[in-house]
Amino acid sequence: MLVKGKLTQAIQWNEEKYTLEVIDQRLLPFKFKIIELKTSQQIFDAIKDMVVRGAPVIGGTAAYGMYIAFLESLENGKVNIQKLKNKAIFLKSSRPTAVNLMFAVDSIFRKISTNTKAKEVLSWAKAYAQKDIDDCLQIGKAGLPLIEDIYNNKQETVNILTHCNAGWLATGEYGTATAPIYLAHDKGIPVHVWVDETRPRNQGANLTAWELQQHGVPFTIVADNTGGHLMQHNMVDMCIVGSDRTTVNGDVANKIGTYLKALAAYDNRIPFYVALPLSTIDFDMKDGIKNIPIEKRDTEELTHMSGINENKEIQRIRVFPENVQVANYAFDVTPAKYITALITEKGIVQAEKQAIRLLKS
Amino acid sequence: MLVKGKLTQAIQWNEEKYTLEVIDQRLLPFKFKIIELKTSQQIFDAIKDMVVRGAPVIGGTAAYGMYIAFLESLENGKVNIQKLKNKAIFLKSSRPTAVNLMFAVDSIFRKISTNTKAKEVLSWAKAYAQKDIDDCLQIGKAGLPLIEDIYNNKQETVNILTHCNAGWLATGEYGTATAPIYLAHDKGIPVHVWVDETRPRNQGANLTAWELQQHGVPFTIVADNTGGHLMQHNMVDMCIVGSDRTTVNGDVANKIGTYLKALAAYDNRIPFYVALPLSTIDFDMKDGIKNIPIEKRDTEELTHMSGINENKEIQRIRVFPENVQVANYAFDVTPAKYITALITEKGIVQAEKQAIRLLKS
Repeated sequence: MLVKGKLTQAIQWNEEKYTLEVIDQRLLPFKFKIIELKTSQQIFDAIKDMVVRGAPVIGGTAAYGMYIAFLESLENGKVNIQKLKNKAIFLKSSRPTAVNLMFAVDSIFRKISTNTKAKEVLSWAKAYAQKDIDDCLQIGKAGLPLIEDIYNNKQETVNILTHCNAGWLATGEYGTATAPIYLAHDKGIPVHVWVDETRPRNQGANLTAWELQQHGVPFTIVADNTGGHLMQHNMVDMCIVGSDRTTVNGDVANKIGTYLKALAAYDNRIPFYVALPLSTIDFDMKDGIKNIPIEKRDTEELTHMSGINENKEIQRIRVFPENVQVANYAFDVTPAKYITALITEKGIVQAEKQAIRLLKS
Repeated sequence: MLVKGKLTQAIQWNEEKYTLEVIDQRLLPFKFKIIELKTSQQIFDAIKDMVVRGAPVIGGTAAYGMYIAFLESLENGKVNIQKLKNKAIFLKSSRPTAVNLMFAVDSIFRKISTNTKAKEVLSWAKAYAQKDIDDCLQIGKAGLPLIEDIYNNKQETVNILTHCNAGWLATGEYGTATAPIYLAHDKGIPVHVWVDETRPRNQGANLTAWELQQHGVPFTIVADNTGGHLMQHNMVDMCIVGSDRTTVNGDVANKIGTYLKALAAYDNRIPFYVALPLSTIDFDMKDGIKNIPIEKRDTEELTHMSGINENKEIQRIRVFPENVQVANYAFDVTPAKYITALITEKGIVQAEKQAIRLLKS
């Protein structure tokens, strides 16, 4: 997507420097900075410190991390498998709950033998990262007609509400929830996005808004509390959100607060779509509320905020009283009954067991 | 309620100094500071600049403001009615949309004639402020059995979710939504409050949390996005919120986001109560969603935040990207069908027309 008018991806392999160039997402939206990662330690740090975030981008970063680890494990032109294995374990420990991270590292590690050539590993890493981008494009193509239909009926700007950042910063390009929006916009369909601020980490206000602004898509940021009011007053035509994990029953774990928006959409008969790559589906898990473990994160994500002070410097302040108890749940589960449909790289799928099982390849 | 172990009200008349002592609520929770108001100009400024906030406390402040205006309008021991009238108009212009402000000023002005004695006006001001506190105590007594019942069934801590600040800082003492909670706590019933942060102005994290902390009531602050997840996992036994305006059908306009919590409570079969003085009921209005106008406020409430920097100073930073469109809706409407009951100074009332009409005196 566009950044300052230039086509940009969240992570990019630099063929000349042999480095992985990643956007430092911790500084967004206040600063746009590319960081070059050269060692597996730097890859580890970038994932751990959330320089990169979003399941697919973490996976892609780890895939290139395995290539770098491979180079670091070469001894007399051959890879030392034990050394590589240790580095693989190390990489996987950077964010222990990120499934894509495990998958990226394991799938590349499994292909490697003592005879594997470095350029082969690089091609696997590239293919791994490109697969996520291709999936997002397919999700975009599957979701585009949903927006087009609303526009054809309405003949006015289509208002779409989204929560958190399921955008290209998280997936490399296009994003998941944002893919149909970018494709509609690029096709000339007038769209306007209601961007939930998404406390506590403000990924909506900080990342989704930044993405849309850079690409030229009209949007308005609102407090997370606002979506229900907008839906009651016909100011939302559809919702599209992402998924961190999807059960075979069609329950969706996504950023905390997604469930509340789904309830409001249901109450106001507004379609609520979840855009997701099939890789988020756990075909062995049925009941999302009972079975998906919900991460509790550092309470400083709530008690402190970063922003720009009057001297234009990034500054962090405490916005809550001292010595208070705070709980920071990162995700919630939206039951399938509140989901109009899933938008996947294989097309639109009902959020129910029969349909989802058919996706298992 | 207790502040630093000392019984405190939001506004208090100092009999010796002849001043109105008010808590500067703009500094909470970071600083606790009492300001003394001596002139009608100072009363005006305190209301306009939101040193005091919350409809009942604004009304009470204005009532004492009328006493001070009366003293300022004395000429040779008699009040100059025209002078007083000008001061009354001036006081009412401090926050033109605050119904309680108009009511307080007008109701005291109407009682005053050229023969009125100063001590009479003081007694009316005191009675006006005390009426709101008495109503809150009655709301507390009406709501207390709801908490007691849950405790008697459960024999464990009762978990109560609230949104925004319908606490004693807004009403003088007890609060509305918090009144049953304070009474239950003071009676020894173990309660724990989930405090919604309440973006954009953070009245939950800043005011409700501070109140509960000072009074010793256990609580946990959560992001506004969190309530649905808590309710799905049996971590909430009941919700109690306040009301800014209530229709005769039982629809409730309250801080933006209230509606989303009501939907989640309904979906999880958790009782959702609205605590309100009868003065918030508009007996001429039926459909809240159609008819209650929703205030849009300054977007800087969203884009900027105040807090404490590393030097322990209060500092304001911009937390959103520059040049973005932002919308700041202050309230939403919760339809009556999602409200279990209203807790009023006349007892528990169903949120429906027949029952509410009976309250009209």
